[in-house]
Amino acid sequence: MSGNSIGKSFVVTCFGESHGKCVGVVVDGCPPGLSVDEEMIQEELNRRRPVSEQVSTTRKEEDRVQLLSGVFNGRTTGAPITLLVWNRDADSSAYEELLGKPRPGHADYPALIRYSAGNDHRGGGRFSGRLTAALVMAGAVAKTYLSSKSVDILAYTVEAAGIKAKSPPTEARETREKSAANVMRCPDQEAARRMEDAVAAARADGDSVGGIVECVAHGLPPGVGDPIFDSVDADMAKMLFDIPAVKGVEFGVGFEAARLKGSENNDPYRIRDGRVVTETNNAGGVLGGLTNGMPIVVRVAFKPTPSISKKQRTVELTTLRNAELEVKGRHDPCIVPRAVPVVEAAVALVLADHLLRQRI
Amino acid sequence: MSGNSIGKSFVVTCFGESHGKCVGVVVDGCPPGLSVDEEMIQEELNRRRPVSEQVSTTRKEEDRVQLLSGVFNGRTTGAPITLLVWNRDADSSAYEELLGKPRPGHADYPALIRYSAGNDHRGGGRFSGRLTAALVMAGAVAKTYLSSKSVDILAYTVEAAGIKAKSPPTEARETREKSAANVMRCPDQEAARRMEDAVAAARADGDSVGGIVECVAHGLPPGVGDPIFDSVDADMAKMLFDIPAVKGVEFGVGFEAARLKGSENNDPYRIRDGRVVTETNNAGGVLGGLTNGMPIVVRVAFKPTPSISKKQRTVELTTLRNAELEVKGRHDPCIVPRAVPVVEAAVALVLADHLLRQRI
Amino acid sequence: MSGNSIGKSFVVTCFGESHGKCVGVVVDGCPPGLSVDEEMIQEELNRRRPVSEQVSTTRKEEDRVQLLSGVFNGRTTGAPITLLVWNRDADSSAYEELLGKPRPGHADYPALIRYSAGNDHRGGGRFSGRLTAALVMAGAVAKTYLSSKSVDILAYTVEAAGIKAKSPPTEARETREKSAANVMRCPDQEAARRMEDAVAAARADGDSVGGIVECVAHGLPPGVGDPIFDSVDADMAKMLFDIPAVKGVEFGVGFEAARLKGSENNDPYRIRDGRVVTETNNAGGVLGGLTNGMPIVVRVAFKPTPSISKKQRTVELTTLRNAELEVKGRHDPCIVPRAVPVVEAAVALVLADHLLRQRI
Amino acid sequence: MSGNSIGKSFVVTCFGESHGKCVGVVVDGCPPGLSVDEEMIQEELNRRRPVSEQVSTTRKEEDRVQLLSGVFNGRTTGAPITLLVWNRDADSSAYEELLGKPRPGHADYPALIRYSAGNDHRGGGRFSGRLTAALVMAGAVAKTYLSSKSVDILAYTVEAAGIKAKSPPTEARETREKSAANVMRCPDQEAARRMEDAVAAARADGDSVGGIVECVAHGLPPGVGDPIFDSVDADMAKMLFDIPAVKGVEFGVGFEAARLKGSENNDPYRIRDGRVVTETNNAGGVLGGLTNGMPIVVRVAFKPTPSISKKQRTVELTTLRNAELEVKGRHDPCIVPRAVPVVEAAVALVLADHLLRQRI
Repeated sequence: MSGNSIGKSFVVTCFGESHGKCVGVVVDGCPPGLSVDEEMIQEELNRRRPVSEQVSTTRKEEDRVQLLSGVFNGRTTGAPITLLVWNRDADSSAYEELLGKPRPGHADYPALIRYSAGNDHRGGGRFSGRLTAALVMAGAVAKTYLSSKSVDILAYTVEAAGIKAKSPPTEARETREKSAANVMRCPDQEAARRMEDAVAAARADGDSVGGIVECVAHGLPPGVGDPIFDSVDADMAKMLFDIPAVKGVEFGVGFEAARLKGSENNDPYRIRDGRVVTETNNAGGVLGGLTNGMPIVVRVAFKPTPSISKKQRTVELTTLRNAELEVKGRHDPCIVPRAVPVVEAAVALVLADHLLRQRI
Repeated sequence: MSGNSIGKSFVVTCFGESHGKCVGVVVDGCPPGLSVDEEMIQEELNRRRPVSEQVSTTRKEEDRVQLLSGVFNGRTTGAPITLLVWNRDADSSAYEELLGKPRPGHADYPALIRYSAGNDHRGGGRFSGRLTAALVMAGAVAKTYLSSKSVDILAYTVEAAGIKAKSPPTEARETREKSAANVMRCPDQEAARRMEDAVAAARADGDSVGGIVECVAHGLPPGVGDPIFDSVDADMAKMLFDIPAVKGVEFGVGFEAARLKGSENNDPYRIRDGRVVTETNNAGGVLGGLTNGMPIVVRVAFKPTPSISKKQRTVELTTLRNAELEVKGRHDPCIVPRAVPVVEAAVALVLADHLLRQRI
Repeated sequence: MSGNSIGKSFVVTCFGESHGKCVGVVVDGCPPGLSVDEEMIQEELNRRRPVSEQVSTTRKEEDRVQLLSGVFNGRTTGAPITLLVWNRDADSSAYEELLGKPRPGHADYPALIRYSAGNDHRGGGRFSGRLTAALVMAGAVAKTYLSSKSVDILAYTVEAAGIKAKSPPTEARETREKSAANVMRCPDQEAARRMEDAVAAARADGDSVGGIVECVAHGLPPGVGDPIFDSVDADMAKMLFDIPAVKGVEFGVGFEAARLKGSENNDPYRIRDGRVVTETNNAGGVLGGLTNGMPIVVRVAFKPTPSISKKQRTVELTTLRNAELEVKGRHDPCIVPRAVPVVEAAVALVLADHLLRQRI
Repeated sequence: MSGNSIGKSFVVTCFGESHGKCVGVVVDGCPPGLSVDEEMIQEELNRRRPVSEQVSTTRKEEDRVQLLSGVFNGRTTGAPITLLVWNRDADSSAYEELLGKPRPGHADYPALIRYSAGNDHRGGGRFSGRLTAALVMAGAVAKTYLSSKSVDILAYTVEAAGIKAKSPPTEARETREKSAANVMRCPDQEAARRMEDAVAAARADGDSVGGIVECVAHGLPPGVGDPIFDSVDADMAKMLFDIPAVKGVEFGVGFEAARLKGSENNDPYRIRDGRVVTETNNAGGVLGGLTNGMPIVVRVAFKPTPSISKKQRTVELTTLRNAELEVKGRHDPCIVPRAVPVVEAAVALVLADHLLRQRI
């Protein structure tokens, strides 16, 4: 296995396992002189904690971040920044049965084929959603850098269990506050309430639901990206599909663009306050793989958590016979609210990488 | 600018401009001993030619591929393979006006900001759809390799101008033949006819339409991919978003998964003919970033070609005043059919890279 | 700063500082199923400890390795392996003066320019020889892998303080034992004694000496390497020059080859025991960037430790005036014996990377 | 095979074969706006042409460079720059015998093992010195960029056939002129004459000689380099060892540093004209992997050309029997003078890459 590093100028390397000693990350390429401390990283980490007993797993991880390198006297030095959280509340007992019977919708089966000689299957090992803690820690550093460049990243839930939220407020601050006010991380309070009910119903039924997270990046100058192959949207899509359970990514009007005419979809340019802007933002801030100065808007589809307690059809790998499976253990009936800070982190990591490549 | 190479074991480097001397590609990492010649690459290239006067640009490029290196006596040597097509029918006259007035929906404006010192704006320069000829040439090599591993890639149009095709036949061969039988590259002949009419109507109106291409990869073993960051779906998404005009990518049921319950979305495992398969393929062949042995299914949304002849609102960059623009020149009213072989090439490149990484 | 990762298939990422919390390393790409534990890594680490009060620093670091990830039930899992040692006996007090007066021969001055905003100068920060502990830990993993492929790496001192050792024994085992029998890590006991005296004399004089380490890799098949740019000697040279204090690298007869005729330098091929071998090994096992099946022989020149207690001429950076400096603090009067396991580790890392790239 | 690209921000990809259609290179990452044309690249290429019938091969290649992409109206655009020379005077007839009998000192044998399925052995294929034309073309672009940053690269012969030149003049211009004045590219005219005689004598005897090239880079600011693993000397060593026939690389006093005391080897800092300089330059301009503001001085040892016409001992690979070989064909009895512009190119490529990474 390789492929645990990503980025060219802001390089993130992930390590650790769900039920091993820790989950950690090395961030290489962060410029010197930025204020970084454990508290601010902790705040981001706290956002991906189980949000409530109703809609989240009951696994309780304190997830105290520890900063191991790259910061001296409260400032980054330019050396690699290493961050980790230790695992404590891991219950591996439930995973023994899964060795022979792969869970539908999980990575169990392909992972077994791929790493047969020594996979740490406990808790999903490297494939656990817990690994996203590494993204969130690294993303907190990326956001600090972006903040110094006046770039702001904001994600929120726009759909869960088939319930769509209304369009978010135009003001980022308002969207942020409203999303923080409910366990679904959705700026539409009324929709959030219905989503919450749907999640609770699914949980009661031993089932799970999916949803869609939208993320907006404000403050980017035009011209960020390295086409042909390191275009900013392509790099963002890659990072987002690396988050477990993501099945779709779209920018601006996305799939809907396929149904529009060119005359409807093209965003007309206008001069506003002496700056070039577009009247609409169907492009979601990206043209030809470069930012165009408008907010980047990306939507990410999450499938329902594959861990459900309902009885499922599977196979016994040793005997190659059909079998049934009931998965025990704690899980999130809806991963979407906890994915919100992960999506923010992913988008932040890509933008930090691109701004640093171009020294903007 | 950098970022014109992609891949780790099967590395593709793109060069050339729409209205420069040529468009070319270097493929590094192709194993020695494969049968590769100009004819088979030419066949792939021919598939992305303008398909008809009704639905395509009238720019006529013979696009004869020339093989410059890496093949000796009709077989690859293991050395880099260089392929190019010379440009001939380029009319740059129409592009002078565009220097000062960026075309809505095109990369003109961000590219000007990014490469102000020396951009070759003619014909969109590096941002032209013509650059996809490089992908197709490299993809032809990738397909030859994949074919030696019994992996088959097949793309076709599933939607254009808002018209949806019926599900394709289950047999890849049949889908391939039916798609080749109409200018829309759509396996549903009746839908294809309506799409064609809609494209022609848009063209007559000086407008353009978008659509959706689906691509299926058969024959992959389970366990292909390098999570966390080089998962096979993530790498595929990155490559696909690098194709001009792509605004969305989804795997399996994709965005629709966000609306399903876990019990509906999880694909149950079954034993069939002694092999592990899934009853459904909602996952689109990817779990945890690894192939699961089922066909990979990916859908790609293309926006309508931004080049339209209708009058559009834009700005004058030198005076920072609002302005209007009528784009002359030849363009595709619907890029979708010509994008079909490009999507196939992109998917093939990623799979060849991953199979070679793992020496499968 | 970036550049703290190296390798393509066996990727090593270094973190930590001389006087920070720890020095650590992430190894990504190690195949699953290898026996790895803290004890074997500890043994390698012990070899780079200060070898004696006469020839080494008096800084005492227990350097207990801690294994954080990637190993489950005593076997590698294929996931990233994280290893670290905590710093304890760091005395940063001596380094305050150095902020304004750069030490000749050290990285102080260019590092200050490079990382002005936040460099951790204590103990040389990232530029300390202590960072080589990371190489040694990662190298221990690489050696385990190489050992499973019957590849053996062996380094020893061939020159120190201008005293040359006789050619080592032909048997690797004998060379290893003889080198371990003295503090200079030199297979020639008599030369070792004289080297030791010279080092002690330099120390008494507040001075330091340099030397040359030779490293031999046995057991490689022919054809390892990726010319043009990833040739095996080039990658080895890069890794070796990344070790602090290295000023020269040569393969086989090295610089002496420049003085030979082609007829003297070419190694004639012969058949021995049914295998192709060369009569001599002037090439040091590398031809055209590929191994030729003979042992790889590389020699590495180390400059004398720049830390000396003699008075030296330097400048005051704030006032831009000439100044004098006496460096306090503990240092090695001869880095060579402690560099022996580091050279072995560097060579092992490159070979593991190349064997894995080629899946040999 | 992969490994035909190098660099992070200024990425060079090599293609072509000695006896194929062409030798070429793609340079990705060159900033827009630089004056680049075929004439200036041709001038550099001319410097690596056979220098005289006495000391060079009689293969006559016109080596006219052709510029295929990345330059518009005489200026770089920021897009990849593709350059190539077509092969014409290739005589492959002499190479048939070599298929079964590997030439001592050449890559024939390991290359056969490595690329058995399809190697293009003609003229050494990818392992031919002719491939260095690609380095020289790319290096010419790098030099143009460096020149815009006031960085100057200068290489010359300091030893050949065991004859050492006197130290070069302190003025770069004078060294350049004197080196250009003789076929050995050596600033010491008297030594050059004796070298030339020694080469002619070796040629008459069917033999060859080696030598040492020194390269100096003036004008670099302090702080260039990315330790730990992308230090500027390490990257330079890697690039230099990628040149065929290189067996040793050293910086500053190099291997001699191993024999000095710290008090002799450390370069004292002084203030001169308000700038920090060192009194001596034993370090060769590099400390801790970073430039220190003094000229970079690197020396590169070339083995004698392995192609000699004297009878040599080799083996027959099909029968695994000992055999003899007389190599026909044209070759350089001393590669050193033609290597001078190649060394310059290699150093220029690394420095351009590092300056661009740091946006200096």
